[in-house]
Amino acid sequence: MSDPHAHRPAVVDLLGLVAFGQLLAFDRLAADARLAPDLRRRAVLSEMAAAEIGTFRRLAGRLAALGVPPEEAMAPYVEPLQAYHDSTEPKDWLEAVTKAYVGDGISDDFLREIAGGLDEPDRRLVLDVLHESRYAEFAAAEFRAALQADPRAANRLSMWARRLVGEALSQAGRVAAADRGALTALVAQGGRVDAQELFGRLTAVHTERMTAVGLNN
Amino acid sequence: MSDPHAHRPAVVDLLGLVAFGQLLAFDRLAADARLAPDLRRRAVLSEMAAAEIGTFRRLAGRLAALGVPPEEAMAPYVEPLQAYHDSTEPKDWLEAVTKAYVGDGISDDFLREIAGGLDEPDRRLVLDVLHESRYAEFAAAEFRAALQADPRAANRLSMWARRLVGEALSQAGRVAAADRGALTALVAQGGRVDAQELFGRLTAVHTERMTAVGLNN
Repeated sequence: MSDPHAHRPAVVDLLGLVAFGQLLAFDRLAADARLAPDLRRRAVLSEMAAAEIGTFRRLAGRLAALGVPPEEAMAPYVEPLQAYHDSTEPKDWLEAVTKAYVGDGISDDFLREIAGGLDEPDRRLVLDVLHESRYAEFAAAEFRAALQADPRAANRLSMWARRLVGEALSQAGRVAAADRGALTALVAQGGRVDAQELFGRLTAVHTERMTAVGLNN
Repeated sequence: MSDPHAHRPAVVDLLGLVAFGQLLAFDRLAADARLAPDLRRRAVLSEMAAAEIGTFRRLAGRLAALGVPPEEAMAPYVEPLQAYHDSTEPKDWLEAVTKAYVGDGISDDFLREIAGGLDEPDRRLVLDVLHESRYAEFAAAEFRAALQADPRAANRLSMWARRLVGEALSQAGRVAAADRGALTALVAQGGRVDAQELFGRLTAVHTERMTAVGLNN
């Protein structure tokens, strides 16, 4: 049987990774919303959580159309992504906002880099997963207010953000190791992108995002 | 200052109640999704949770348009609704599905009854909150499979459903007592609807829904 999708295994891996990432982000953001100091803020984090499900459904639909049960495509990523979230459970509202801000930012940058190596309709689908900018603006406003009330919070949140990035990189390493090589090949895009270089770029943009809200790397 | 909204206080109370009901249903369904035995089922319950947020946003928007901060309109209902959920935490997947099925059904019936007493655009808005029928169908399929595998589960789930209704009625009584009278007046619709009669109708339809999936009241 000839396979019309030359890149199919890599795409399936990628869509599975992104889909489970969204299902879990939904789960954790929904739980973190309980840390909100008031109903208005709680509603915003709940909305951020719910937004993950809309694109999750489209990814699951695309996997099904490719003939792969979504749960099968997601399975290899359950453990590392779960481990990331288990090791980075926010203890208060500002830690929860920081985690959403840092996680959304890095995941959006990663998806933008990856999308370049995909064919349509997957390219468009992955780009549609990107978060609405109003959520980053909401987080930025929360940081501004918090740092104005207590400038010492900057140090604590910066340390927390570093831990988030450290745990994310450690789990990304596990994902790459568990991977059958297809995903890594997709990231590398046939030599166009060097994984080391990619991590370097992601880190640089992350640092800019931290500085923009008064935190440091 | 003349108020163009003769029914405004009652509508604000009702929208506040429905909005907080959705925010909390989101929170609990999202948590209950973790009880799912596999990723496919987990995704369905997560989607059901996320659906609550879409209409929550519209209700919050309507409250803001009426000049009432949504959190202010929701405040009177935080305690009773929270108490309902705290006293009915599912211990396993089938209890979670039962809770979603029973809760969605009663809440939809209640909203349909209430909507008749509202003017547009609130009437339409409240009717849009009604749950998609595919979620009830999903629950029905879960019950069928569970009762086929173990017919004794019917007894346990029927008892659980009775407890859910009992707790809901008890908290509905608290809502009515805490209410400034406006909501109760709206439910009564100027004498068109008797609250006792309303409860009777809601219970009758609930019983039908239980029987339809092989559970008894």
